[in-house]
Amino acid sequence: MTECPVTFADVQVAQQCITPWIHRTPVMTSSKLDTLTGAHLYFKCENLQKVGAFKARGACHAVARWFNDATELERTAGVMTHSSGNHAAALAYAASIHGVPARVVMPRNAPAVKKQAVADYGALIVECEPGLPAREAATQSLIEQSGAYFVPPYDHPHIIAGQGTTVLEFYEQVTDIDVLMAPVGGGGLLAGSALASRHLRPSVSVIAAEPKAADDAARGFYSSKRVAEVKTETVADGLRTTVGINNFPIICQHVDDILTVSEGAIVNAMQLLWTRLKMVVEASSAVPLAAILENPERFRSQHIAIILSGGNVDLESLPF
Amino acid sequence: MTECPVTFADVQVAQQCITPWIHRTPVMTSSKLDTLTGAHLYFKCENLQKVGAFKARGACHAVARWFNDATELERTAGVMTHSSGNHAAALAYAASIHGVPARVVMPRNAPAVKKQAVADYGALIVECEPGLPAREAATQSLIEQSGAYFVPPYDHPHIIAGQGTTVLEFYEQVTDIDVLMAPVGGGGLLAGSALASRHLRPSVSVIAAEPKAADDAARGFYSSKRVAEVKTETVADGLRTTVGINNFPIICQHVDDILTVSEGAIVNAMQLLWTRLKMVVEASSAVPLAAILENPERFRSQHIAIILSGGNVDLESLPF
Repeated sequence: MTECPVTFADVQVAQQCITPWIHRTPVMTSSKLDTLTGAHLYFKCENLQKVGAFKARGACHAVARWFNDATELERTAGVMTHSSGNHAAALAYAASIHGVPARVVMPRNAPAVKKQAVADYGALIVECEPGLPAREAATQSLIEQSGAYFVPPYDHPHIIAGQGTTVLEFYEQVTDIDVLMAPVGGGGLLAGSALASRHLRPSVSVIAAEPKAADDAARGFYSSKRVAEVKTETVADGLRTTVGINNFPIICQHVDDILTVSEGAIVNAMQLLWTRLKMVVEASSAVPLAAILENPERFRSQHIAIILSGGNVDLESLPF
Repeated sequence: MTECPVTFADVQVAQQCITPWIHRTPVMTSSKLDTLTGAHLYFKCENLQKVGAFKARGACHAVARWFNDATELERTAGVMTHSSGNHAAALAYAASIHGVPARVVMPRNAPAVKKQAVADYGALIVECEPGLPAREAATQSLIEQSGAYFVPPYDHPHIIAGQGTTVLEFYEQVTDIDVLMAPVGGGGLLAGSALASRHLRPSVSVIAAEPKAADDAARGFYSSKRVAEVKTETVADGLRTTVGINNFPIICQHVDDILTVSEGAIVNAMQLLWTRLKMVVEASSAVPLAAILENPERFRSQHIAIILSGGNVDLESLPF
């Protein structure tokens, strides 16, 4: 068995490292949602995190660790990534803390609202043609030209450790829970959270939730072989990625189950979070509640800690 | 000058009375909204209150006060109101606490989602034809038939005192503010809040915000004569009412200014609260922020305490 690329101590280091730049997000409950599900639900509101998503944790950690060891020349070159989602804004935010430049490769057709969010944090947007090959080529070329440090969105030990701080904080806020639930896309949040949960509360069951329409994590988990391709048709746009190479073994070791859910259940759960919890969350955040709604017997009477991963939505194109 | 129908001591009594049934709602901030407005904004999230609106405070107070003095026969007859909005759900919730029946007169064409919310709290819905005359006739007839205690939505000292508890709590949570802002419809929240603010922090400027399209409060305030008619065309459906008889003199005495805002500014402010604060709020809640956006110079650098009045929206008919 290969050595785990991230340890619990790494998550603790990450927490100490990022505390000055990160919100301690609140935990919300709803008696109506408890009645509806027959369970006791505790929602960790990472939609209220800096940049509106847990991604600020990993990016702040990875950039701070790099910055501490970087030469003046490397600092001047700054950091970069490719992303059309929350990681792009998170990296831009993390770079702004240290006063280093950030460059983000984004497809030419990315929504204007997403580009604006990245630009608002002072990052430079480098446009490329749509599609993965063009994106990877643009990224490689930018690394070579600029000498910037590449911070991947999820497949990196520092990112995983940073996202795991969500659970360190969550477990300071809630006691006596039976189940921890998180959505899974690239697996940064899930791997870090599962690792932290297993260490702090070994008896808590860690259950991931994933759209059926992008079920690479579940298929990989049950075949013990990482699936490197995924369809991108789910409404949960934050989860249209395959589980990372660093992330997969941690997930296999510390996650108890991965449930897949229908698109209809995701939209329904999203509406419930908006109307009952009064929280603006993106579709990815609704995937764990969707899994509970689709498996009511399994979760009845359980105390469930749920991570609401983010709240960045385009009000012009809501799925309801 | 007539004696004020509500005193600060009444608000304190109300707070003690309702504490067991009411959430202590959080105060949120947003560095992005601060940057955008050039001010320091503190949002009291009454959208996270029981029944999703501050209305739970007044209804819980009025029902508890009535219940304590009521005979067994009166308790059996229960309470009633007419409303198609948040007060209906609030009364239903308050009645359920004491195990007494609640009846709510609602127009036959009220949205199903609103009727459902009231029914969910166990209240009996009595349908009437649309329009104020039919509603008042149905209310009168129901009072006579049932002997139920009528709890008006805003024009009552117990309601005003109950809504004023919002500011008692708010001022425990924020220090050093220059301005308090609240929306004004019937004036329950505004009258109670202004009264409490004037007593606790006399130097804080109390500024109400109202849709231009339903500006009865502003016209009454500046002519020192209550306006008893209002158009009902604003998107802020919670504010389509005239200021109450009990409420008006309190507002004239303790409010410093009433600003009116355009419909466009309300929708814009609502979108900002959704996308930046990640809070689901109804249009009425967005009216104070709309006033700040329309008067940037006036509010620049000020520390402003803003009451977000409620979060009950119909996702099927959003104004954007």
